[in-house]
Amino acid sequence: MSGTQERVGTTPAIEGLKQALRRLPGVGPKGAQRMALHLLERDREGARQIADALQHALGKVVHCQRCNNLTEQELCAICSSPRRDHSQLCIVESPADLIALEQAGVYQGLYFVLMGHLSPLDGIGPEELGIPRVEALFNEGSVKELILATNLTVEGEATAHYVGELARSRKIRTTRIAYGVPVGGELEYVDQGTLARAFSGRRET
Amino acid sequence: MSGTQERVGTTPAIEGLKQALRRLPGVGPKGAQRMALHLLERDREGARQIADALQHALGKVVHCQRCNNLTEQELCAICSSPRRDHSQLCIVESPADLIALEQAGVYQGLYFVLMGHLSPLDGIGPEELGIPRVEALFNEGSVKELILATNLTVEGEATAHYVGELARSRKIRTTRIAYGVPVGGELEYVDQGTLARAFSGRRET
Repeated sequence: MSGTQERVGTTPAIEGLKQALRRLPGVGPKGAQRMALHLLERDREGARQIADALQHALGKVVHCQRCNNLTEQELCAICSSPRRDHSQLCIVESPADLIALEQAGVYQGLYFVLMGHLSPLDGIGPEELGIPRVEALFNEGSVKELILATNLTVEGEATAHYVGELARSRKIRTTRIAYGVPVGGELEYVDQGTLARAFSGRRET
Repeated sequence: MSGTQERVGTTPAIEGLKQALRRLPGVGPKGAQRMALHLLERDREGARQIADALQHALGKVVHCQRCNNLTEQELCAICSSPRRDHSQLCIVESPADLIALEQAGVYQGLYFVLMGHLSPLDGIGPEELGIPRVEALFNEGSVKELILATNLTVEGEATAHYVGELARSRKIRTTRIAYGVPVGGELEYVDQGTLARAFSGRRET
Protein backbone atom coordinates (compact mmCIF):
# COMPACT_ATOMS: atom_id res chain seq x y z
CA MET A 1 0.00 0.00 0.00
CA SER A 2 1.58 3.29 -1.08
CA GLY A 3 2.07 6.38 1.09
CA THR A 4 -0.55 8.32 -0.86
CA GLN A 5 -3.22 5.72 -0.29
CA GLU A 6 -2.40 5.58 3.39
CA ARG A 7 -2.60 9.37 3.55
CA VAL A 8 -6.14 9.59 2.19
CA GLY A 9 -7.56 6.62 4.07
CA THR A 10 -8.60 4.64 1.01
CA THR A 11 -7.52 1.33 -0.60
CA PRO A 12 -6.46 0.09 -4.06
CA ALA A 13 -9.78 -1.71 -4.62
CA ILE A 14 -11.75 1.43 -3.71
CA GLU A 15 -9.53 3.56 -5.96
CA GLY A 16 -10.00 1.05 -8.80
CA LEU A 17 -13.76 1.19 -8.36
CA LYS A 18 -13.70 5.02 -8.37
CA GLN A 19 -11.68 4.99 -11.60
CA ALA A 20 -14.10 2.52 -13.20
CA LEU A 21 -17.20 4.50 -12.16
CA ARG A 22 -15.76 7.61 -13.82
CA ARG A 23 -16.45 5.91 -17.15
CA LEU A 24 -20.14 6.54 -16.50
CA PRO A 25 -21.33 9.67 -18.35
CA GLY A 26 -21.62 12.74 -16.12
CA VAL A 27 -19.68 11.21 -13.22
CA GLY A 28 -16.63 13.15 -11.99
CA PRO A 29 -14.13 12.34 -9.23
CA LYS A 30 -16.38 13.47 -6.35
CA GLY A 31 -19.42 11.63 -7.71
CA ALA A 32 -17.41 8.45 -8.30
CA GLN A 33 -16.11 8.54 -4.73
CA ARG A 34 -19.60 9.07 -3.36
CA MET A 35 -20.92 6.13 -5.42
CA ALA A 36 -18.04 3.80 -4.51
CA LEU A 37 -18.29 4.51 -0.77
CA HIS A 38 -22.07 4.33 -0.78
CA LEU A 39 -22.04 0.90 -2.43
CA LEU A 40 -19.32 -0.50 -0.16
CA GLU A 41 -20.66 1.02 3.07
CA ARG A 42 -24.40 0.67 2.68
CA ASP A 43 -25.49 -1.20 -0.40
CA ARG A 44 -23.34 -4.22 -1.17
CA GLU A 45 -26.43 -5.94 -2.48
CA GLY A 46 -26.86 -3.03 -4.93
CA ALA A 47 -23.22 -3.32 -5.98
CA ARG A 48 -23.72 -7.01 -6.72
CA GLN A 49 -26.91 -6.21 -8.64
CA ILE A 50 -25.15 -3.61 -10.80
CA ALA A 51 -22.24 -5.96 -11.55
CA ASP A 52 -24.63 -8.78 -12.48
CA ALA A 53 -26.87 -6.52 -14.61
CA LEU A 54 -23.82 -5.24 -16.51
CA GLN A 55 -22.52 -8.78 -17.17
CA HIS A 56 -26.00 -9.92 -18.21
CA ALA A 57 -26.58 -6.98 -20.57
CA LEU A 58 -23.11 -7.33 -22.10
CA GLY A 59 -23.88 -10.96 -22.87
CA LYS A 60 -27.41 -10.37 -24.19
CA VAL A 61 -27.63 -7.01 -25.91
CA VAL A 62 -26.62 -6.87 -29.58
CA HIS A 63 -27.50 -4.65 -32.52
CA CYS A 64 -30.61 -5.30 -34.60
CA GLN A 65 -29.55 -6.67 -37.98
CA ARG A 66 -31.98 -4.35 -39.70
CA CYS A 67 -32.28 -1.05 -37.79
CA ASN A 68 -29.07 -1.17 -35.72
CA ASN A 69 -30.95 -0.43 -32.46
CA LEU A 70 -30.01 -2.36 -29.32
CA THR A 71 -31.92 -5.64 -29.00
CA GLU A 72 -31.65 -9.17 -27.63
CA GLN A 73 -32.79 -10.84 -30.85
CA GLU A 74 -31.48 -10.86 -34.40
CA LEU A 75 -34.31 -8.47 -35.33
CA CYS A 76 -35.59 -6.01 -32.72
CA ALA A 77 -39.22 -5.95 -31.57
CA ILE A 78 -40.00 -2.94 -33.78
CA CYS A 79 -38.49 -4.38 -36.98
CA SER A 80 -40.16 -7.75 -36.44
CA SER A 81 -43.58 -6.32 -35.56
CA PRO A 82 -46.28 -6.86 -38.19
CA ARG A 83 -48.07 -3.78 -36.82
CA ARG A 84 -45.37 -1.31 -37.92
CA ASP A 85 -45.56 0.57 -41.21
CA HIS A 86 -42.65 -0.59 -43.36
CA SER A 87 -43.12 2.27 -45.82
CA GLN A 88 -41.72 4.87 -43.40
CA LEU A 89 -38.12 4.95 -42.22
CA CYS A 90 -37.03 7.38 -39.50
CA ILE A 91 -33.34 8.14 -39.02
CA VAL A 92 -32.20 8.88 -35.46
CA GLU A 93 -28.76 9.29 -33.93
CA SER A 94 -29.16 7.12 -30.83
CA PRO A 95 -31.31 4.53 -29.05
CA ALA A 96 -32.28 7.26 -26.53
CA ASP A 97 -33.74 9.34 -29.40
CA LEU A 98 -35.69 6.31 -30.59
CA ILE A 99 -37.02 5.67 -27.07
CA ALA A 100 -38.12 9.32 -26.78
CA LEU A 101 -40.05 9.10 -30.08
CA GLU A 102 -41.62 5.76 -29.08
CA GLN A 103 -42.70 7.23 -25.74
CA ALA A 104 -44.36 10.12 -27.57
CA GLY A 105 -46.31 7.39 -29.41
CA VAL A 106 -46.72 9.41 -32.61
CA TYR A 107 -44.86 7.22 -35.09
CA GLN A 108 -45.71 3.74 -36.37
CA GLY A 109 -42.98 3.23 -38.98
CA LEU A 110 -39.49 1.73 -38.76
CA TYR A 111 -36.22 3.29 -37.66
CA PHE A 112 -32.57 3.25 -38.45
CA VAL A 113 -30.25 4.14 -35.55
CA LEU A 114 -26.95 5.64 -36.71
CA MET A 115 -25.26 5.41 -33.28
CA GLY A 116 -23.75 8.82 -33.89
CA HIS A 117 -23.43 11.47 -36.58
CA LEU A 118 -20.99 12.27 -39.37
CA SER A 119 -17.84 13.68 -37.83
CA PRO A 120 -14.92 13.50 -40.26
CA LEU A 121 -12.43 14.90 -37.73
CA ASP A 122 -13.17 11.93 -35.44
CA GLY A 123 -12.95 9.50 -38.37
CA ILE A 124 -16.71 8.91 -38.39
CA GLY A 125 -17.88 8.69 -41.99
CA PRO A 126 -20.89 7.06 -43.69
CA GLU A 127 -19.43 3.53 -43.28
CA GLU A 128 -19.06 3.89 -39.48
CA LEU A 129 -22.70 4.99 -39.18
CA GLY A 130 -23.96 2.05 -41.25
CA ILE A 131 -25.28 4.36 -43.99
CA PRO A 132 -24.63 1.68 -46.66
CA ARG A 133 -27.20 -0.40 -44.73
CA VAL A 134 -29.69 2.48 -45.06
CA GLU A 135 -29.04 2.47 -48.83
CA ALA A 136 -29.67 -1.27 -48.89
CA LEU A 137 -33.02 -0.63 -47.17
CA PHE A 138 -33.86 2.00 -49.83
CA ASN A 139 -32.94 -0.51 -52.54
CA GLU A 140 -35.36 -3.09 -51.14
CA GLY A 141 -38.08 -0.74 -52.43
CA SER A 142 -40.54 -0.74 -49.50
CA VAL A 143 -39.48 2.66 -48.08
CA LYS A 144 -41.74 5.42 -49.41
CA GLU A 145 -40.82 8.16 -46.94
CA LEU A 146 -37.58 8.95 -45.16
CA ILE A 147 -38.03 11.00 -41.97
CA LEU A 148 -34.89 12.72 -40.75
CA ALA A 149 -34.85 13.08 -36.96
CA THR A 150 -31.15 13.69 -36.33
CA ASN A 151 -30.28 16.38 -33.81
CA LEU A 152 -30.32 20.07 -34.70
CA THR A 153 -26.55 20.45 -34.47
CA VAL A 154 -24.02 21.13 -37.24
CA GLU A 155 -23.14 17.41 -37.38
CA GLY A 156 -26.76 16.28 -37.10
CA GLU A 157 -27.77 18.60 -39.95
CA ALA A 158 -24.85 17.45 -42.12
CA THR A 159 -25.82 13.83 -41.47
CA ALA A 160 -29.49 14.54 -42.31
CA HIS A 161 -28.41 16.29 -45.52
CA TYR A 162 -26.20 13.36 -46.55
CA VAL A 163 -28.83 10.67 -45.95
CA GLY A 164 -31.52 12.90 -47.48
CA GLU A 165 -29.56 13.19 -50.72
CA LEU A 166 -29.30 9.40 -50.95
CA ALA A 167 -33.09 9.14 -50.63
CA ARG A 168 -33.86 11.97 -53.04
CA SER A 169 -31.61 10.44 -55.67
CA ARG A 170 -33.87 7.38 -55.47
CA LYS A 171 -37.04 9.57 -55.64
CA ILE A 172 -37.99 8.68 -52.06
CA ARG A 173 -39.98 11.41 -50.29
CA THR A 174 -37.75 13.01 -47.66
CA THR A 175 -38.94 15.01 -44.64
CA ARG A 176 -37.31 16.54 -41.57
CA ILE A 177 -39.13 16.75 -38.23
CA ALA A 178 -40.16 20.31 -37.32
CA TYR A 179 -38.02 22.53 -35.12
CA GLY A 180 -39.36 25.62 -33.40
CA VAL A 181 -40.80 26.93 -30.16
CA PRO A 182 -41.58 23.98 -27.86
CA VAL A 183 -45.15 23.35 -26.76
CA GLY A 184 -45.81 25.44 -23.66
CA GLY A 185 -42.67 27.48 -24.35
CA GLU A 186 -42.91 31.20 -23.68
CA LEU A 187 -41.29 33.32 -26.37
CA GLU A 188 -39.60 35.42 -23.71
CA TYR A 189 -37.55 32.44 -22.54
CA VAL A 190 -36.85 30.77 -25.88
CA ASP A 191 -33.29 31.06 -27.22
CA GLN A 192 -32.54 33.10 -30.35
CA GLY A 193 -31.59 30.11 -32.51
CA THR A 194 -34.92 28.44 -31.82
CA LEU A 195 -36.82 31.67 -32.48
CA ALA A 196 -34.98 32.12 -35.79
CA ARG A 197 -35.87 28.54 -36.70
CA ALA A 198 -39.51 29.08 -35.70
CA PHE A 199 -39.71 32.13 -37.97
CA SER A 200 -38.00 30.59 -40.99
CA GLY A 201 -40.20 27.51 -40.59
CA ARG A 202 -43.50 29.42 -40.27
CA ARG A 203 -46.52 28.10 -42.18
CA GLU A 204 -49.81 29.37 -43.55
CA THR A 205 -52.64 28.75 -41.09
CA MET B 1 -41.04 -9.55 -24.96
CA SER B 2 -43.98 -7.57 -23.58
CA GLY B 3 -45.94 -4.93 -25.46
CA THR B 4 -44.58 -2.15 -23.29
CA GLN B 5 -41.00 -3.08 -23.97
CA GLU B 6 -41.69 -3.23 -27.68
CA ARG B 7 -43.36 0.16 -27.49
CA VAL B 8 -40.36 1.95 -26.03
CA GLY B 9 -37.71 0.23 -28.13
CA THR B 10 -35.78 -1.25 -25.24
CA THR B 11 -35.10 -4.80 -23.94
CA PRO B 12 -35.36 -6.68 -20.61
CA ALA B 13 -31.57 -6.69 -20.14
CA ILE B 14 -31.39 -2.92 -20.73
CA GLU B 15 -34.32 -2.34 -18.36
CA GLY B 16 -32.63 -4.53 -15.73
CA LEU B 17 -29.42 -2.54 -16.08
CA LYS B 18 -31.33 0.74 -15.75
CA GLN B 19 -33.02 -0.52 -12.57
CA ALA B 20 -29.67 -1.62 -11.14
CA LEU B 21 -27.94 1.69 -11.94
CA ARG B 22 -30.67 3.56 -10.05
CA ARG B 23 -29.19 2.14 -6.85
CA LEU B 24 -26.26 4.52 -7.38
CA PRO B 25 -26.71 7.66 -5.24
CA GLY B 26 -27.98 10.66 -7.20
CA VAL B 27 -28.99 8.65 -10.27
CA GLY B 28 -32.62 8.96 -11.41
CA PRO B 29 -34.48 7.27 -14.27
CA LYS B 30 -33.13 9.58 -17.00
CA GLY B 31 -29.57 9.36 -15.74
CA ALA B 32 -29.76 5.56 -15.45
CA GLN B 33 -31.01 5.29 -19.04
CA ARG B 34 -28.24 7.58 -20.26
CA MET B 35 -25.64 5.49 -18.44
CA ALA B 36 -27.02 2.14 -19.60
CA LEU B 37 -27.23 3.18 -23.26
CA HIS B 38 -23.83 4.88 -23.18
CA LEU B 39 -22.16 1.74 -21.82
CA LEU B 40 -23.91 -0.62 -24.26
CA GLU B 41 -23.54 1.63 -27.32
CA ARG B 42 -20.09 3.10 -26.87
CA ASP B 43 -18.18 1.75 -23.93
CA ARG B 44 -18.57 -1.99 -23.46
CA GLU B 45 -14.99 -2.10 -22.25
CA GLY B 46 -15.98 0.45 -19.56
CA ALA B 47 -19.02 -1.66 -18.62
CA ARG B 48 -16.77 -4.69 -18.17
CA GLN B 49 -14.32 -2.61 -16.13
CA ILE B 50 -17.08 -1.39 -13.78
CA ALA B 51 -18.47 -4.91 -13.30
CA ASP B 52 -14.98 -6.28 -12.56
CA ALA B 53 -14.09 -3.41 -10.20
CA LEU B 54 -17.34 -3.94 -8.27
CA GLN B 55 -16.73 -7.67 -7.92
CA HIS B 56 -13.12 -7.08 -6.92
CA ALA B 57 -13.98 -4.42 -4.32
CA LEU B 58 -16.82 -6.55 -2.88
CA GLY B 59 -14.34 -9.39 -2.41
CA LYS B 60 -11.52 -7.28 -0.97
CA VAL B 61 -12.93 -4.39 1.03
CA VAL B 62 -13.77 -5.05 4.67
CA HIS B 63 -14.01 -2.93 7.82
CA CYS B 64 -10.91 -2.17 9.88
CA GLN B 65 -11.08 -4.18 13.13
CA ARG B 66 -10.05 -1.13 15.09
CA CYS B 67 -11.44 2.04 13.47
CA ASN B 68 -14.24 0.58 11.32
CA ASN B 69 -13.03 2.41 8.18
CA LEU B 70 -13.01 0.53 4.86
CA THR B 71 -9.76 -1.36 4.30
CA GLU B 72 -8.32 -4.46 2.63
CA GLN B 73 -6.42 -5.62 5.72
CA GLU B 74 -7.46 -6.57 9.23
CA LEU B 75 -6.12 -3.21 10.42
CA CYS B 76 -6.27 -0.22 8.04
CA ALA B 77 -3.17 1.67 6.98
CA ILE B 78 -3.88 4.50 9.44
CA CYS B 79 -4.42 2.24 12.47
CA SER B 80 -1.33 0.16 11.67
CA SER B 81 0.94 3.15 10.99
CA PRO B 82 3.65 3.78 13.61
CA ARG B 83 3.65 7.44 12.54
CA ARG B 84 0.13 8.17 13.80
CA ASP B 85 -0.52 9.61 17.26
CA HIS B 86 -2.44 6.99 19.25
CA SER B 87 -3.36 9.50 21.96
CA GLN B 88 -5.90 11.29 19.74
CA LEU B 89 -9.13 9.71 18.51
CA CYS B 90 -11.31 11.54 16.00
CA ILE B 91 -14.93 10.44 15.51
CA VAL B 92 -16.37 10.86 11.99
CA GLU B 93 -19.63 9.67 10.46
CA SER B 94 -18.31 8.25 7.18
CA PRO B 95 -15.21 7.18 5.21
CA ALA B 96 -15.76 10.23 2.96
CA ASP B 97 -15.43 12.51 6.01
CA LEU B 98 -12.21 10.72 6.99
CA ILE B 99 -10.83 11.11 3.45
CA ALA B 100 -11.65 14.85 3.50
CA LEU B 101 -9.77 15.31 6.80
CA GLU B 102 -6.81 13.25 5.55
CA GLN B 103 -6.66 15.34 2.38
CA ALA B 104 -6.58 18.50 4.50
CA GLY B 105 -3.50 16.93 6.10
CA VAL B 106 -4.03 18.60 9.49
CA TYR B 107 -4.51 15.58 11.74
CA GLN B 108 -2.05 12.85 12.73
CA GLY B 109 -4.12 10.86 15.21
CA LEU B 110 -6.44 7.89 14.81
CA TYR B 111 -10.09 7.75 13.79
CA PHE B 112 -13.25 5.88 14.51
CA VAL B 113 -15.77 5.77 11.65
CA LEU B 114 -19.37 5.38 12.86
CA MET B 115 -20.81 4.66 9.39
CA GLY B 116 -23.79 6.85 10.27
CA HIS B 117 -25.25 8.76 13.19
CA LEU B 118 -27.72 8.04 15.99
CA SER B 119 -31.19 7.87 14.51
CA PRO B 120 -33.59 6.09 16.86
CA LEU B 121 -36.50 6.33 14.39
CA ASP B 122 -34.48 4.29 11.88
CA GLY B 123 -33.44 1.83 14.57
CA ILE B 124 -29.85 3.11 14.62
CA GLY B 125 -28.63 3.19 18.20
CA PRO B 126 -25.17 3.08 19.82
CA GLU B 127 -24.76 -0.65 19.06
CA GLU B 128 -25.34 -0.20 15.32
CA LEU B 129 -22.69 2.55 15.19
CA GLY B 130 -20.12 0.43 17.02
CA ILE B 131 -20.00 2.85 19.96
CA PRO B 132 -19.22 -0.04 22.38
CA ARG B 133 -16.00 -0.44 20.34
CA VAL B 134 -15.21 3.25 20.96
CA GLU B 135 -15.68 2.61 24.70
CA ALA B 136 -13.32 -0.36 24.44
CA LEU B 137 -10.73 1.98 22.85
CA PHE B 138 -11.20 4.44 25.74
CA ASN B 139 -10.74 1.59 28.21
CA GLU B 140 -7.40 0.64 26.63
CA GLY B 141 -6.12 3.88 28.17
CA SER B 142 -4.06 5.32 25.31
CA VAL B 143 -6.65 7.89 24.17
CA LYS B 144 -5.98 11.26 25.79
CA GLU B 145 -8.18 13.41 23.55
CA LEU B 146 -11.44 12.69 21.79
CA ILE B 147 -12.13 14.96 18.80
CA LEU B 148 -15.74 15.04 17.66
CA ALA B 149 -16.04 15.67 13.92
CA THR B 150 -19.58 14.46 13.26
CA ASN B 151 -21.73 16.61 10.98
CA LEU B 152 -23.45 19.75 12.21
CA THR B 153 -26.95 18.28 11.93
CA VAL B 154 -29.40 17.40 14.70
CA GLU B 155 -28.37 13.74 14.49
CA GLY B 156 -24.66 14.52 14.18
CA GLU B 157 -24.84 16.79 17.26
CA ALA B 158 -26.77 14.18 19.25
CA THR B 159 -24.18 11.56 18.30
CA ALA B 160 -21.32 13.88 19.28
CA HIS B 161 -23.01 14.59 22.61
CA TYR B 162 -23.51 10.89 23.32
CA VAL B 163 -19.91 9.88 22.55
CA GLY B 164 -18.59 12.98 24.32
CA GLU B 165 -20.37 12.02 27.53
CA LEU B 166 -18.75 8.57 27.44
CA ALA B 167 -15.31 10.20 27.16
CA ARG B 168 -15.95 12.85 29.82
CA SER B 169 -17.12 10.17 32.28
CA ARG B 170 -13.64 8.64 31.83
CA LYS B 171 -11.95 12.07 32.25
CA ILE B 172 -10.78 12.06 28.63
CA ARG B 173 -10.39 15.54 27.15
CA THR B 174 -13.20 16.08 24.63
CA THR B 175 -13.21 18.67 21.82
CA ARG B 176 -15.46 19.47 18.88
CA ILE B 177 -14.05 20.84 15.61
CA ALA B 178 -14.89 24.52 15.06
CA TYR B 179 -17.90 25.62 13.01
CA GLY B 180 -18.25 29.12 11.62
CA VAL B 181 -17.70 31.26 8.54
CA PRO B 182 -15.65 29.26 5.99
CA VAL B 183 -12.24 30.52 4.93
CA GLY B 184 -12.75 32.97 2.05
CA GLY B 185 -16.47 33.18 2.86
CA GLU B 186 -18.07 36.61 2.55
CA LEU B 187 -20.46 37.43 5.40
CA GLU B 188 -23.03 38.68 2.91
CA TYR B 189 -23.40 35.20 1.44
CA VAL B 190 -23.11 33.08 4.57
CA ASP B 191 -26.34 31.49 5.86
CA GLN B 192 -27.90 32.61 9.15
CA GLY B 193 -27.24 29.35 10.99
CA THR B 194 -23.54 29.56 10.21
CA LEU B 195 -23.41 33.23 11.23
CA ALA B 196 -25.16 32.41 14.50
CA ARG B 197 -22.62 29.65 15.11
CA ALA B 198 -19.73 31.97 14.24
CA PHE B 199 -20.98 34.52 16.80
CA SER B 200 -21.64 32.08 19.61
CA GLY B 201 -18.24 30.48 18.97
CA ARG B 202 -16.29 33.79 18.92
CA ARG B 203 -12.98 33.92 20.76
CA GLU B 204 -10.67 36.52 22.31
CA THR B 205 -7.96 37.59 19.87
